[in-house]
Amino acid sequence: MQPEKQQDVLKRLAFIEGHLQGVRRMIEEDKYCVDVLKQTFAVRRAIEKMEQLMLDGHLHNCVVEGIKDGRDDQVIDELLDLYELANR
Amino acid sequence: MQPEKQQDVLKRLAFIEGHLQGVRRMIEEDKYCVDVLKQTFAVRRAIEKMEQLMLDGHLHNCVVEGIKDGRDDQVIDELLDLYELANR
Amino acid sequence: MQPEKQQDVLKRLAFIEGHLQGVRRMIEEDKYCVDVLKQTFAVRRAIEKMEQLMLDGHLHNCVVEGIKDGRDDQVIDELLDLYELANR
Amino acid sequence: MQPEKQQDVLKRLAFIEGHLQGVRRMIEEDKYCVDVLKQTFAVRRAIEKMEQLMLDGHLHNCVVEGIKDGRDDQVIDELLDLYELANR
Repeated sequence: MQPEKQQDVLKRLAFIEGHLQGVRRMIEEDKYCVDVLKQTFAVRRAIEKMEQLMLDGHLHNCVVEGIKDGRDDQVIDELLDLYELANR
Repeated sequence: MQPEKQQDVLKRLAFIEGHLQGVRRMIEEDKYCVDVLKQTFAVRRAIEKMEQLMLDGHLHNCVVEGIKDGRDDQVIDELLDLYELANR
Repeated sequence: MQPEKQQDVLKRLAFIEGHLQGVRRMIEEDKYCVDVLKQTFAVRRAIEKMEQLMLDGHLHNCVVEGIKDGRDDQVIDELLDLYELANR
Repeated sequence: MQPEKQQDVLKRLAFIEGHLQGVRRMIEEDKYCVDVLKQTFAVRRAIEKMEQLMLDGHLHNCVVEGIKDGRDDQVIDELLDLYELANR
């Protein structure tokens, strides 16, 4: 990953870790489940945003490079795998 | 939440936090993005499993109680809100 | 389902069927895949909205009734199954 | 799309249309909502499989061609848009 992108991803990850600590506190203090669930949904969404950033970097670098090097099938099969995994 | 359920949720949360630390290390060591993404997908799935556990407790306790107390509309509107939020 | 809700669901279904016919035409005319995919995403989202309507009816009727009849475990296990299936 | 892929996609679409007709009948006959929902979930999953097939064709053809023609940014921005839309 390019250094600025890496820093951006790590910053988002730190935010996600902090968010999860908040979730932990809510569970320990036995807060209302509905409110805890709304927070875990927000955490998952923040992870998805971080994934988009990594995918952006991956497409612009590894995929473009791989295709220009003639490794089309390899990079594309990886993308299709990811897409299937992302949808579970 | 019932004490055993709460302990189970906290145990899963500890696992998720550890998994995210592994993701952090992978990003810091500049591992291949595709491999990092596979791990963040797994983290999201682990959060979903934890959510199912909390939802289970919520349905069996608060929702049943709420409906027996005649607060049907309130508990059901909360559930529909959650369902919509879970699907974003 | 209550008659008005049933009519609403059937109207949405007719819209979804029409939308899919449009998708069929796009594929037959070999339109750009990216544009076809945007339409199928919209179809899936329309199906999700229709599901929310059915779930709303189910919660307000069958679930409330089931819990008031003491069939808590049955109606709640069905809901948890649905939730897990909806997330695949 | 390549002709065989197009035929495969159209075949899957015909299956999805038939499945939705079954859903329509279930709603008209006022079947149990939980059972209808399980069918609409299956329809959405069948649409996702059809999308994967189209995405496969798109990546192997338009994306590879676009990158070899130097239109990297255009094809990659389209992919990122799709990914964001697919996750809503």
